[in-house]
Amino acid sequence: MSGAFHFERVAIVGLGLIGGSLGHAVKRAGLARHIAGHARSEATRKRALEIGFVDSVHESAAEAAKDADLVVVCTPVGALGPVAAEIEPHLKKGAILTDVGSVKLAVIRDMGPHVPEGVHFIPGHPIAGTEESGPDAGFAELFEGRWCILTPVPGTDQAAVDKLNAFWTACGSKVDVMEPKHHDLVLAIVSHLPHIIAYNIVGTASDLETVTQSEVIKYSASGFRDFTRLAASDPTMWRDICLNNKEPILEMLGRFSEDLTALQRAIRWGDGDKLFDLFTRTRAIRRSIVDAGQDIAAPNFGRNPTHAQPGGKQDQ
Amino acid sequence: MSGAFHFERVAIVGLGLIGGSLGHAVKRAGLARHIAGHARSEATRKRALEIGFVDSVHESAAEAAKDADLVVVCTPVGALGPVAAEIEPHLKKGAILTDVGSVKLAVIRDMGPHVPEGVHFIPGHPIAGTEESGPDAGFAELFEGRWCILTPVPGTDQAAVDKLNAFWTACGSKVDVMEPKHHDLVLAIVSHLPHIIAYNIVGTASDLETVTQSEVIKYSASGFRDFTRLAASDPTMWRDICLNNKEPILEMLGRFSEDLTALQRAIRWGDGDKLFDLFTRTRAIRRSIVDAGQDIAAPNFGRNPTHAQPGGKQDQ
Repeated sequence: MSGAFHFERVAIVGLGLIGGSLGHAVKRAGLARHIAGHARSEATRKRALEIGFVDSVHESAAEAAKDADLVVVCTPVGALGPVAAEIEPHLKKGAILTDVGSVKLAVIRDMGPHVPEGVHFIPGHPIAGTEESGPDAGFAELFEGRWCILTPVPGTDQAAVDKLNAFWTACGSKVDVMEPKHHDLVLAIVSHLPHIIAYNIVGTASDLETVTQSEVIKYSASGFRDFTRLAASDPTMWRDICLNNKEPILEMLGRFSEDLTALQRAIRWGDGDKLFDLFTRTRAIRRSIVDAGQDIAAPNFGRNPTHAQPGGKQDQ
Repeated sequence: MSGAFHFERVAIVGLGLIGGSLGHAVKRAGLARHIAGHARSEATRKRALEIGFVDSVHESAAEAAKDADLVVVCTPVGALGPVAAEIEPHLKKGAILTDVGSVKLAVIRDMGPHVPEGVHFIPGHPIAGTEESGPDAGFAELFEGRWCILTPVPGTDQAAVDKLNAFWTACGSKVDVMEPKHHDLVLAIVSHLPHIIAYNIVGTASDLETVTQSEVIKYSASGFRDFTRLAASDPTMWRDICLNNKEPILEMLGRFSEDLTALQRAIRWGDGDKLFDLFTRTRAIRRSIVDAGQDIAAPNFGRNPTHAQPGGKQDQ
């Protein structure tokens, strides 16, 4: 019977969007005989048990992690060090310890010192999410077709990496292995910069004296609303990411600002050719993202109501 | 019979996303006895007739506009002046002349001098669109629930404004009337700045030496893909908007950059409280946009595959 399970006991520490989705996915695929969960808030623990994506909840991370064959810490990045310190004495020999944080060098810095001999610490990052948070936000399909990046440190047991790889694959992910430093650089541009820019533009719009908040909301379908989704993401999570991936983020912000200054200058001086060149160059990348299965093809992200999707190419 | 029609003859000049959608909407609501269309490209004219959102196509804007009771010019903003000059001698007395451009002061500057005595010139802007373009991109529902802003100049015949208002309402829009100068300021923040920022970030990501284009595409679901939709919009349209709404756009870019510099400083100095405050403040605005019916409530813009939407609030 136990051959049907990847793990006898999986512990999920942090029962929000990612922890909850992972519980659902593990249940759906039958990857664990028992899922033990922990969240700091009693309400969250109660709700997780009600929804049923964990089999038991525990008041401390240590109790949840005890005897687990796989421990997945799904808290904001800033809490990973303290959680690792807490569970350290309780980890089972041979267990795999992983996380889901959007930065990896800082996670290795913070969790690494608390990994006991014989425990396989493999930092991970499923690149999936929504702007929602909390135990009700999770769903089993979140990881389907999305990438999960593992960043094992040198000397990690390959069998353990393979096992974690198989686990995420069974949850629906496609798995890549990468250097932690490179991960942090890639994520700075594909995820951290977009979120920071989105937060910033929503802040700028909120602060205007000449345009009211209600006008911004009414007319948001003209572009602004696309940014508000990212700017509605969990504030604690994003504070921790900004604080823990400082150098790559500052590097990307520097490049972005330089490019924006050049673009601003082209607007001021009426350099239509320069504007046209940039605006043409960026069009192709969306097609590639849709072709790669990383976004849907329907216009407006498919949110138009009764719109039967047009078939052909454009030739205006 | 003719009481059933708002207009005997409507001319649509420019048969792309907006012109096409307007044709579909007018047909669906039965707002014209005849729709005459013009596009510069012969292929587009042929395709528009095939699809059937116009009743006739014409090689020149002048022929299309001749005898029309309503002329809607749906070209990029930079072409509005030349089109107005061309059709000027052919406009029927009592006709309404309008446009759909995303800037209004420049349109008044460019089209205004070409409006004959007895023709009612009422600049307009339906705030609706997708990232697609061309005659195949249009659909009748595009304007449903979206705002259309009219910016009549002082002295405009009120009956004509009411008629155009009723026309857009019948196409599914909600109509607002606004000063052209205020329109341009509002659109600079809700539409022009978001598009410029999106184009810029996609450009920055494309130019990196340390992160490959294929990595940007693979991992784009972590945030970046949201920007690529706006950055896939029509380059000519956006070049013309940037060239014709310079001052408000430069003003908004200035504010955005100031705010971003402050945010960058908070990241560099590890000011977690400042980051948390901004990231919390911006969350509410998305809820307001959803409540106002200007975006859908489903997470990830509803693009998750089989995801039954969770019901309740979060309490993580």
